[in-house]
Amino acid sequence: MFDDKGEKYLDCINNVAHVGHSHPHVIKAATKQMELLNTNSRFLHDNLVQYAQRLTATLPEKLSVCYFVNSGSEANDLALRLARQYHGHQDVITLENAYHGHVTSLIDISPYKFNQLGKDSKKEFVHVAPSPDIYRGKYREDHPDPASAYAEEVKKIIEEAQKNGRKIAAFIAESMQSCGGQVIPPVGYFQKVAEYVRAAGGLFIADEVQVGFGRVGKHFWAFQLQGEDFVPDIVTMGKPIGNGHPMSCVVTTREIAESFGASGMEYFNTFGGNPVSCAIGLAVLEVIEKEDLQGNATRVGNYLLELLAEQKEKHPLVGDIRGVGLFVGVDLVKDQQKRTPATAEALHLIYKLKEHQILLSADGPHRNILKFKPPMCFTMEDAKHVVETIDALLTEMEEATGMKTENNVSTNAQCKRKVCFEFFFNSYSDRCLANQV
Amino acid sequence: MFDDKGEKYLDCINNVAHVGHSHPHVIKAATKQMELLNTNSRFLHDNLVQYAQRLTATLPEKLSVCYFVNSGSEANDLALRLARQYHGHQDVITLENAYHGHVTSLIDISPYKFNQLGKDSKKEFVHVAPSPDIYRGKYREDHPDPASAYAEEVKKIIEEAQKNGRKIAAFIAESMQSCGGQVIPPVGYFQKVAEYVRAAGGLFIADEVQVGFGRVGKHFWAFQLQGEDFVPDIVTMGKPIGNGHPMSCVVTTREIAESFGASGMEYFNTFGGNPVSCAIGLAVLEVIEKEDLQGNATRVGNYLLELLAEQKEKHPLVGDIRGVGLFVGVDLVKDQQKRTPATAEALHLIYKLKEHQILLSADGPHRNILKFKPPMCFTMEDAKHVVETIDALLTEMEEATGMKTENNVSTNAQCKRKVCFEFFFNSYSDRCLANQV
Repeated sequence: MFDDKGEKYLDCINNVAHVGHSHPHVIKAATKQMELLNTNSRFLHDNLVQYAQRLTATLPEKLSVCYFVNSGSEANDLALRLARQYHGHQDVITLENAYHGHVTSLIDISPYKFNQLGKDSKKEFVHVAPSPDIYRGKYREDHPDPASAYAEEVKKIIEEAQKNGRKIAAFIAESMQSCGGQVIPPVGYFQKVAEYVRAAGGLFIADEVQVGFGRVGKHFWAFQLQGEDFVPDIVTMGKPIGNGHPMSCVVTTREIAESFGASGMEYFNTFGGNPVSCAIGLAVLEVIEKEDLQGNATRVGNYLLELLAEQKEKHPLVGDIRGVGLFVGVDLVKDQQKRTPATAEALHLIYKLKEHQILLSADGPHRNILKFKPPMCFTMEDAKHVVETIDALLTEMEEATGMKTENNVSTNAQCKRKVCFEFFFNSYSDRCLANQV
Repeated sequence: MFDDKGEKYLDCINNVAHVGHSHPHVIKAATKQMELLNTNSRFLHDNLVQYAQRLTATLPEKLSVCYFVNSGSEANDLALRLARQYHGHQDVITLENAYHGHVTSLIDISPYKFNQLGKDSKKEFVHVAPSPDIYRGKYREDHPDPASAYAEEVKKIIEEAQKNGRKIAAFIAESMQSCGGQVIPPVGYFQKVAEYVRAAGGLFIADEVQVGFGRVGKHFWAFQLQGEDFVPDIVTMGKPIGNGHPMSCVVTTREIAESFGASGMEYFNTFGGNPVSCAIGLAVLEVIEKEDLQGNATRVGNYLLELLAEQKEKHPLVGDIRGVGLFVGVDLVKDQQKRTPATAEALHLIYKLKEHQILLSADGPHRNILKFKPPMCFTMEDAKHVVETIDALLTEMEEATGMKTENNVSTNAQCKRKVCFEFFFNSYSDRCLANQV
């Protein structure tokens, strides 16, 4: 990316510009179709059919019906409507720290959002399950079977809800939690959750808005990391789907779509599935395949994870490295044992990286997780450059605070460091606001 | 418009292709910006500022804060959130037959949608006011002051709601009801409603998604037809804004925006206000101005209304002609006195027009209102051609059913005609499905 002065930045965060900023093949497809016809979806157009075919070909066979919409929020809202219509149930199970969109119905099911409003902001029909985070969560890497343990938590929630006369419409989760802190659920978790949820008459919604479209490398969809025996009832997709063009999709089974159709209420979306959006969607799929971006995600992702693993050995600030393909999280801690989130440090690092013309973000409930989700054309050299810069900055930060030499930091030392980084925070945040890319 | 065989159709309905299908200036702006940068709105970009300035320049001064989103539905959902945050109230007053979008929160306030689900589908926090329709509504053209009478209905609803301990967050209405049947509210209605709603701590939301952007000709916004003394608290816009590109906007006052900002919950929209959408939005505004499309809407709209008025004199099927600029409705009736909606006849006419390569639609609660909302480059010749074709088809239909010669049609004759048109309906609807443009 280049700023208005022509300065070059390395983009490690833009999962919207999925196949690369301003990809010529995508632009060409968009322009060609805009010159021919762009109209609302009251009119049938071949692009829509072709795109639905190409998209469903990437999914398990039973996920065969597409609804084209304009944003991840519209997609998740529609997914909830499909689920609620299916058995007439209303309640939704969501994960701790989850974010599913900005419209009213999704803020209701997004603890990442509604927790910002303070206590009592959770609606009665919403049930929050523990995030299946084996580094910071209830069951950790030393647990013999965290997948089952986290799934049991969902089972307990269902039983409790049913005791209170409530009925579960859906369990919704990102296939990997992104804003929630780059959390990769243990293999087998989704299968067990799906079993419990379906037994209660609910559906499993896999939110692939941030993590789909080959980002994990060896699979096209992140839910496929759970194994071939797992198929969600509804998959929602968004951000990378149009390389920046506002478009999204919900894919579900014929049975669920027919139940929705039988409600008597027509579904219509003005812009959703218009010929230009579909032409762009097709072009994005073509580029992913033609340029072997999934292969690139695996190769560069693995290399990035290796380089970061070396940093973990070296820097006490690095608590955990997790990732698959070009979805990578670095959990910064003040204390390796206690895993205290290094929030101010993460923010400081982000601002410092920006001075070095590298764009990275920090997220998660404590905003201490460095979040890598670069365009899929990210290279080995890019990975090397960003990790070398992080290495240098972490060394500088640790030296400045004496962290390097104290492995078991006392409470006093922590306080001192906190003050130090809060000062950095204030000074850098002002400059950052005045100087955003 | 051209179908896949190259057949030409006259488009009388596409308010999305506002400045004309595939307008070169809009495509050029889109392509240029796509080649340069398209990214999510975590990054600031001059296009966003320039577009916000140009857009707010079309509005009364106090409407000065823009939120860019991707669809009319996202816009109206956000408008509700702004209104609910403002005083912490929850209830919404909406109009009979209103349609405000397809996401969960908007289906709740859209009788056009929730009535399809049968009785008891109205939520407790929703209050439905009579549509200010002076042809079919409670107070008609012979009433001395329909604006006040309809506004009094809203006042009664507020009083009743307050008696039940409920609190009004907003009154929402399209500035002219489109799906609701091309209804133009009597002048002064909005001022009075706004007074009552604001006194109850609620806000006035003007939904301009279908009717804004100069369609009414002499004003840029349809709410301005009510007079200069009327300023809504929130204006939502959509369909025509990007000539087919998925984009939308909510504009409100600084005070309301600040109250929303103070909630502690960040508003973020991935695609909303991206540099390409803003470049397209700017280009659309430029074309409207440069090609004097508002002037064209006035000139061609007036001519169309004149021509249609002649049809009203001539054809017993034409009950009412109403419109302003290029927003025109033709209310078809089986009986001029009783104003019985001629639903099957309207549908038959639509299908026949399609055979004549003219695209028109029928809408309203009885689907008997011919709905004109053509691209704004619609010409005098286009108007003449469509009205001449309607004239010929109406003559044919009236002759086939003997309607022409019977001005006071008996119940028996009505039945006969109903059968006749239901036959047409079935035969044409099958063909139409197999043969959609």
